[in-house]
Order: sequence, then structure tokens, then C-alpha cells
Amino acid sequence: MEKIYDFAIIGAGPAGMTAGIYAARYKLDCVIIGPDVGGTANLAHDIENWPGFKGPGWDLMEKFREHCTSFNIPMLTESVQKIDNDGIFTITTEKGVHKAHSILLAMGTKRRKLGVKGEEELFGKGVSYCATCDCVFFKEKVVGVVGGSDAAAMAAQILSQHASKVIIIYRKDHMRAEPARVEELENDPKIEFMYNTNVKEIIGNDKLEKVVLDNGSNLSLDGLFIEIGGIPITSLAKSLNIKLADNNRIIVNDSMATDVAGVFAAGDITTGSNQFNQIVTAAAEGAIAALEAFQLARTRKTK
Amino acid sequence: MEKIYDFAIIGAGPAGMTAGIYAARYKLDCVIIGPDVGGTANLAHDIENWPGFKGPGWDLMEKFREHCTSFNIPMLTESVQKIDNDGIFTITTEKGVHKAHSILLAMGTKRRKLGVKGEEELFGKGVSYCATCDCVFFKEKVVGVVGGSDAAAMAAQILSQHASKVIIIYRKDHMRAEPARVEELENDPKIEFMYNTNVKEIIGNDKLEKVVLDNGSNLSLDGLFIEIGGIPITSLAKSLNIKLADNNRIIVNDSMATDVAGVFAAGDITTGSNQFNQIVTAAAEGAIAALEAFQLARTRKTK
Repeated sequence: MEKIYDFAIIGAGPAGMTAGIYAARYKLDCVIIGPDVGGTANLAHDIENWPGFKGPGWDLMEKFREHCTSFNIPMLTESVQKIDNDGIFTITTEKGVHKAHSILLAMGTKRRKLGVKGEEELFGKGVSYCATCDCVFFKEKVVGVVGGSDAAAMAAQILSQHASKVIIIYRKDHMRAEPARVEELENDPKIEFMYNTNVKEIIGNDKLEKVVLDNGSNLSLDGLFIEIGGIPITSLAKSLNIKLADNNRIIVNDSMATDVAGVFAAGDITTGSNQFNQIVTAAAEGAIAALEAFQLARTRKTK
Repeated sequence: MEKIYDFAIIGAGPAGMTAGIYAARYKLDCVIIGPDVGGTANLAHDIENWPGFKGPGWDLMEKFREHCTSFNIPMLTESVQKIDNDGIFTITTEKGVHKAHSILLAMGTKRRKLGVKGEEELFGKGVSYCATCDCVFFKEKVVGVVGGSDAAAMAAQILSQHASKVIIIYRKDHMRAEPARVEELENDPKIEFMYNTNVKEIIGNDKLEKVVLDNGSNLSLDGLFIEIGGIPITSLAKSLNIKLADNNRIIVNDSMATDVAGVFAAGDITTGSNQFNQIVTAAAEGAIAALEAFQLARTRKTK
């Protein structure tokens, strides 16, 4: 007989791994499927707000992964291509097919793009969406960071370790990052701020040369890091006809259930936790979803 | 001029300390007030579901405390006796008076009692509400544990390290603890189960001798550990005229605000997180509340 998991978790970030830890404690037969263990949390330069831990994101995510592994939760490094729902969920990845009675959508977000001319052409040629990944290529160079969030502030801090100058370009008149971090930025002699400014175009010939700003001026840069937040990865949710909010997040109720039976969601992808996207809120949502999946499995098994 | 904190956190458990960590990152002038750093989380024998950590509750809570201390958050070991609200909150403890523009109620729960004859009289004379605290007094003795939750299961496991026999007395026909833990209990030769059974009376002359069960029989015991959950500590909330749910929890909205302006709540005391009381959900609620307190403070300061 074909194997059917009690609970398949799609996404291996903080929400997915915490759901896995809880599901394992509930003795659910579960699996975590995701191409990238840790997800966007890996990219955090330093984590100061996961209580009891300080360090880089990848290090915390490695601890989460070890926790899952210690409970013998299978973690499949596979990308889900489609999910079919005929009461049982059939999950197709590039490597095979998995079946489950209930699923958790915890795929998180992907990086938002500026959508300006030159952005696509110069990606990897000076334009980047990941300071953690690419900072080392900008030693003693001048780089720009677009954005005003914590992620943007952190990117500027990382880049300041390498670059000669970091210019933060933000459309509003003050950073919306944590004030503690903004203060650190302001005390960093390598960091400058350009407020009330947008990038209109990115120019370069096979390599980034400059950006055109909406104040009419040009700014010469060796690198441009775009840190303007995430877009929920909801194509799988759409194909399952799950109801989404206007901002494309998956609408969940208090128990992290979606409007489709057997489908839960947790983490940055949902409308939960007042849409405050943190590792701790994602983890909590994963825990709540796992409890509900357990209740559902118990109901099914005693039927 | 008298000092007025931006944000006073009442309660120093996982919710309160996480709120403190977030508030510090937001540069709020905040204080944590609570008689018991760690709260009920300290009593957890072993924590298996705070991602990235395995160990006793007090150890995790010590890491939370260190995290708070590293951000120079004042932590006052004081018991709040009353809170007056005249736009500014005046918090009276046994040691003094503190003032704040907004507050977080994160006092958690206190242990629920059986409410049977003999319980009060024999408390500390064989009757206990804390296996972690009192297990060592029952070396090679026979003890009972009342309850079927994770806390009850954990208490039985702790006691089994010391006692010669542990009898779990539970009103339902199966434990509602995590199945992984129930399996461990079932494999422990020292542990027995009495299902569909209630304790009707506790008998002893200055020292616990036996309990009367509702099946008519008596059971001789040296110790009785009552682990039947918690009651929200909401007397302060009542005095502030905050709306409570039927089960006495503080009703919060998505941003952890109560129905009284400037008053937030987080942790086991609230209706949040689908009322799933875990360290990770309490921490998430504390984080969300701190963000809202920060927004409120920013609005106040820019007025």
C-alpha cells in the first residue's frame, strides 16, 4: 500500500520546522519538504530577538534543523511543483510524489523587486537581493541599499563591513527599522542616508554603473542591494483555491486553518500574528497548526 | 520630574521577557516587574518544543533573563498590588510606585486546585502543586498525580525518578498529553494509570495518608501532586475594567490590545494563539504587543 503521511509540511523555515517539532511530539507521521532549510531566516546577519539566542540566522536555523533531525523527521530537499487535492493531497516535486492527509503551507516569501529598467539585466552584475550572500564582492566599493526596514538596515550593516561607503536610499523620510539599529547606522561613518528618494532606473553595460534617482540626479554605484520586503509565495495556495487576502497572504483562522479542509498555513505567508513577520511569530503559528493537524488526524483515525 | 516609563511589563515569564527584548530593540524606555523570573515555565522538567533548545525550563528562562539583561532592561522583583489608570498607569508594588504610559499584562496563570476536602489542610504535608519543587521528598515513596495534560505527564516522569511507584489519576479514559510522552509513561514500569477516576477527598492526620476515589475505593499515598492546569491571574485586569472571556482570560485583538487604551496583554493570560499555552506562543504574543506599544509611543511622542 502506498504511504500516506498524516501531515506534510511544505517549507523548511522557522514555521515549517517548528510545526515539524510539534508534530513529532504528537507522533504524527510527518514530513518536511522544502528546497531551502531555514528559508529567509538564513539571510539575517544577526538575530537579536529570538529570546535566548544571539547570532547569525543560519546558525539558529541549523539549531532548528538539528532539533527536527533529533526527532527523526524526514526532511526532503525538494521543490514542490504542484499539489492535487482529492481528499488526499498528492504533492509532486522534481524528485517524486508524496501523499498526505493534511498539509501545512509554510513557504514564506520571496524577495520583492523594484520593477525598474535595468534591474533584471544587471541582476548578478552589481544588483543583488542578498547582502549576506554577496557582501564580499564589494570590498572597498560604493554600494547602495534600497529600503528602510530592518532587513534593509541589516543589509547596510553587513555591507559596511566590506564596502567603503554604503548609501541607504529610502522613499520615506525616516527608517522604519528598529530604532536601536537605526542608531547604530547613524553612528557608522561609512553609512549615508538618502531619504524621500526612489530609484527610477539602473544603468550599466554588463556591469552596474549608476542609478537614476527620482530627484533627477544620477548616483554612481558598484553595487545595489534591493531590500524592499517579501511577496508571499502563494502559487500553490492559488492552485488549491485557497482564499487569499488583498495583499496575497493566505487567510487563516485562529487555528491556522485555511478555508480548504485539511490545509493549514503558517509563517510569513499568512495573515496571522497581526502580519508581524518574525521568527518567533512564524514558529508560534507552526506550533498552533501542528496541534490542529494532530486533532484532525485523531478525529480521522477514530472514525 | 517624576519618571514615566514608555512601557511597563507586568510579569517576567516568556511573554513578558520577550516583550522586553522587543521593546528594548525599539528603544522604548521599559521595565519588567514580576516576582518570579521565568514564571510557570521554570517548572517544566524538560522542554522539547522550544525550537533549537532542549533542557529544563529554568535553564531556558535563565537564557531569556540574560538576553533581557544584555539589553539593560530593568527587571524589578516586585509584586504588583494595584494599577490605577488616569491616562497614565500608576503601578503600586510592595516596594514602591512606578508610572508608565502603556502596560503589558503578562502575569500568566496560577495552579488550579481540586477543591476537595483535605486539600488545603494537607498542602505541604503530602499535597503539592509542583513536582519539580517537591519530588526529592518522595524517595522510594508511593505518589499520585492528578491530571492528564502534558504538565501532569511531565510531573509523573519527574516523580518516577525518585518514587517507588507513581499512579496517574485522571478523570478521562486516556491522557491528553503529547503521545510521545504518553508512550514514555507507558514504558515506565514505575508508572500506573487510573482512568475515569476522580479524587473526592484527601485524608491524613497532619500528613497525607490516603485519598478517597469516586469509584468508592481508598488509595494509600505518601504524596499527591495536583496538575490540573492553570487559572489566569486576572485580578489586576478586573480592577482595570478590562473585558474578560467566559474562561476568565483577557480578550485581546490581533495586536494584543485589550479593550482599555494603553493596556496590552500576552501569554497564558489571554485569549490569543487559539488559547494554546506554549512558551513559543507566549513569546510571539509578547513580540506583537511590544511592536504595538512602540507604535503607540511613537504616536504619543510625535503629537
